Amino acid sequence: MIFCRNEPGTDFSVSKFDVDLTSRVWECVAGELDSRFPWLLKTLAFILVLGIVLFMFRSVSLPVVFRGFKSDHAHLPLTLLSKESIRNLFSYDGIWLFPKQQCKCVTSKGRRGYNLQDAYNHSDLPAVQARRQAEFEHFQRREGLPRPPPLLAQPNIPFGYPVHGVEVMPLHTILIPGLQYEGPEVPVYKVTLKASLGSLNTLADVPGDVVHGRGRKEMIISTSSRKLLQFILQHVTYTSTVYQHHWVDTVSLKFKSSVAKFPVTIRHPVIPKLYDPGPEKQLRNLVTIATKTFLRPHKVKVLLQSIRKYYPDVTVIVADDSKEPMEIKDDYVEYYLMPFGKGWFAGRNLAISQVTTKYVLWVDDDFLFNNKTKIEVLVDVLEKTELDVVGGSVLGNVFQFKLLLEQSEGGDCLNKRKGWFQRLDGFPRCVVTSGVVNFFLAHTERLQRVGFDPRLQRVAHSEFFVDGLGSLLVGSCPYVVVGHQSHSPEDLNPTPLEKIYGIYRKNTNDQIQFKQALHYFKNHLQCFE
Amino acid sequence: MIFCRNEPGTDFSVSKFDVDLTSRVWECVAGELDSRFPWLLKTLAFILVLGIVLFMFRSVSLPVVFRGFKSDHAHLPLTLLSKESIRNLFSYDGIWLFPKQQCKCVTSKGRRGYNLQDAYNHSDLPAVQARRQAEFEHFQRREGLPRPPPLLAQPNIPFGYPVHGVEVMPLHTILIPGLQYEGPEVPVYKVTLKASLGSLNTLADVPGDVVHGRGRKEMIISTSSRKLLQFILQHVTYTSTVYQHHWVDTVSLKFKSSVAKFPVTIRHPVIPKLYDPGPEKQLRNLVTIATKTFLRPHKVKVLLQSIRKYYPDVTVIVADDSKEPMEIKDDYVEYYLMPFGKGWFAGRNLAISQVTTKYVLWVDDDFLFNNKTKIEVLVDVLEKTELDVVGGSVLGNVFQFKLLLEQSEGGDCLNKRKGWFQRLDGFPRCVVTSGVVNFFLAHTERLQRVGFDPRLQRVAHSEFFVDGLGSLLVGSCPYVVVGHQSHSPEDLNPTPLEKIYGIYRKNTNDQIQFKQALHYFKNHLQCFE
Repeated sequence: MIFCRNEPGTDFSVSKFDVDLTSRVWECVAGELDSRFPWLLKTLAFILVLGIVLFMFRSVSLPVVFRGFKSDHAHLPLTLLSKESIRNLFSYDGIWLFPKQQCKCVTSKGRRGYNLQDAYNHSDLPAVQARRQAEFEHFQRREGLPRPPPLLAQPNIPFGYPVHGVEVMPLHTILIPGLQYEGPEVPVYKVTLKASLGSLNTLADVPGDVVHGRGRKEMIISTSSRKLLQFILQHVTYTSTVYQHHWVDTVSLKFKSSVAKFPVTIRHPVIPKLYDPGPEKQLRNLVTIATKTFLRPHKVKVLLQSIRKYYPDVTVIVADDSKEPMEIKDDYVEYYLMPFGKGWFAGRNLAISQVTTKYVLWVDDDFLFNNKTKIEVLVDVLEKTELDVVGGSVLGNVFQFKLLLEQSEGGDCLNKRKGWFQRLDGFPRCVVTSGVVNFFLAHTERLQRVGFDPRLQRVAHSEFFVDGLGSLLVGSCPYVVVGHQSHSPEDLNPTPLEKIYGIYRKNTNDQIQFKQALHYFKNHLQCFE
Repeated sequence: MIFCRNEPGTDFSVSKFDVDLTSRVWECVAGELDSRFPWLLKTLAFILVLGIVLFMFRSVSLPVVFRGFKSDHAHLPLTLLSKESIRNLFSYDGIWLFPKQQCKCVTSKGRRGYNLQDAYNHSDLPAVQARRQAEFEHFQRREGLPRPPPLLAQPNIPFGYPVHGVEVMPLHTILIPGLQYEGPEVPVYKVTLKASLGSLNTLADVPGDVVHGRGRKEMIISTSSRKLLQFILQHVTYTSTVYQHHWVDTVSLKFKSSVAKFPVTIRHPVIPKLYDPGPEKQLRNLVTIATKTFLRPHKVKVLLQSIRKYYPDVTVIVADDSKEPMEIKDDYVEYYLMPFGKGWFAGRNLAISQVTTKYVLWVDDDFLFNNKTKIEVLVDVLEKTELDVVGGSVLGNVFQFKLLLEQSEGGDCLNKRKGWFQRLDGFPRCVVTSGVVNFFLAHTERLQRVGFDPRLQRVAHSEFFVDGLGSLLVGSCPYVVVGHQSHSPEDLNPTPLEKIYGIYRKNTNDQIQFKQALHYFKNHLQCFE
């Protein structure tokens, strides 16, 4: 039996009461034990302290324990890596890609950087810049750009909630998964949910005083039952109330000063546009060949003959902006006559607009099919991968190039480099890149989505792949080869017609200037190197 | 002074100790006071109890306090709303939209639901279904569908991290914002970060034993300094290592058994395709008119005359798949001759493929411009809103319809309803809907992205808006009106040519069956009502 007394004059405050009392009693007990069993006390004390220490350090390895509690890391200065190391980390292929205010147009050895605004008259430039900025802002608004800064979660939030992946179609309703409360016990739980672009509700059948604001943007749950709170939270619904296409709402959950925020994406799925390959999966039901010609009817005829040698019934679409129509006697050729000289990319865009098969094979009018020109091989690549476009080789020339974009205010900088990014999964002889030669197979629907800009009337090639940046995944399989019609006698002694072709085909300074101005305005670029 | 004693034989267990002792002392004190100052005790007791109660319920409203400590909520059964209430919550316009396994094709009063697989021969159906499923899966793979289930955050995670909005371009590197540790103090902090589609690093300059795995998919931070840990976390970088277009990586942060997971989106921004409206913002630099004609040259001529009355120099594109070309003497008309009878939507797709201005105005070849046909008004609507398409009215007929998609395995159900979703912000006389009449102004680039399916050769209209679901935001402003050419003498006594037109134009049963089969396969639909 132990008798311990309160000392007179001790404080009687509610908050400290039990602590103070506990320690005084402990001293009293300890004192009593000590006087009766000194060795027992000391042994017990040692065992107790050792037990506490081992319990506290149970997750720490022994070397650390024996290294002592004072570590060197506490004195380590907080410094960043060297500027050069950081630059390397943010670089790819020697280009410093780190998001920065201003990218610069660099002309270095072997690399020519075009400062695209030089394509405009100095006096016109301010007005052009103003117009481009206005158009760019309109574009941004329609794309929902710029995106808001990342939503950051605070540590130790007493809620479970969905971090990512909650999507709802416009005007639809969904259940929000993963909502739960794991905070302290309180007599009454008051949890507030808020949304901006939709309304909230719950499938739980509870009285009106438990859930306020059903069907509104702010819903308050108020209950003393933790179990009921969880049940209500498990059945919270979100209804999108505005018909829009790609907005992101931020929904918040609040308990006292703890706030959890998570995104709800309002998105309408894009409806599929599939093509039926037919019961036999015949090539003519899968692929259409497309080409554009101008003042070179003899070349087109030679091309067609070479195609028919290997593919007698595949549809060939010919877009022609020559002066006079040509006559083609072929049941599987579709011939389109355009206004004279309307242009190269206009013709390409026209040709692909008429395709009714899943894939389209682009060829130039002076190519020559041979026994290495295996369309089926390219089809196989697109069928088995996620590529949108796969290029082959024109007599060994693959013309693979990478496009790397440095985003920047006042216009982006686009870098063009020979080569490829990585090998293609499943096809080790093929690679992934940004641009290829003008002999490629493409998903018709994806190609039509990007299109060939009819503003490009004369010489143009990489512009298509620039327009496709972010939309088209491009690959290259060099072992599928098409030939090229060598100079024929007609080329050596050109007819008046062919002389005109030569004039149109020349990449003049005016042409170059026009294309630079187009890149500047259309693609919101500052520099192209 | 109050003297209270422990009763002999009382338990001395650590956990209950302070509570038991507290209550025994309290009883002792209370007993002493009571014998000396009965009224004082009762008053003090009352004040004390009231104070404690008010303190405990300080965050609860008074009505709740006075309702008593024992709440009914603990006994409330956990039930959901009635089936009917739930159904209403998930419905829009009477259509039950809740994600469900199987949507059904319903034929009810006034509404005809087409079970689209009926368009196929019964014997062909299994093969068609198999082919459609294969094509759908290929489509899904390329779109990154189906999306993984939502990423759920557990409660009370001792980390701060970015919930949403972290994006990186393929092969680029970014800083991850918001990472922090706010867990318990430990002698050594060991935090593991993991990624799948990229590698991790930190800009903090620290020894190799503090950070393991720089530049790898798993990086381990090991330090005894909490300050150093925070510094390292604040400067963590993520590098995308695979060239892909729209993948989402899940990055995890682990400390003992607490794991935080958050998404990093690997996305290449879509490059802009802007149009220069020119210094004066003249209509002819902003808008191109496009139309398609077939065996109705007289109608086209009347249309052109009416256009020129109000818009003398706006470019008009005419796609023609008649037998013989027509002659149009107009400097601002571009005329395209197609293979005979190639088709309605093929011609529409051709026409829009040639547009070089920001906007394109679609008109049918038998419309008639009048003084209410104000293109500028439609331009103003598109310039000031996020709409992609805005329709007008053809002699009072607006043909507005809503399309509501019920997603389902085995094909979706599409519901078509007259009317509109909501009024257009900033233009109260205009509305947002899914489909409009064939008189509309559209963003050229957005229209080209969707396109007109050249497989639709004869009668078709809503198919274009179905293809545009999820891509085009459509509006309607009924106060911009175009006229319609009334029946001319030529119509009453049709020439042989016009008789042929009549045959082609008829929406035969074969036509209907073909279009249903196309919706079934192409759009992966089960039902269209």
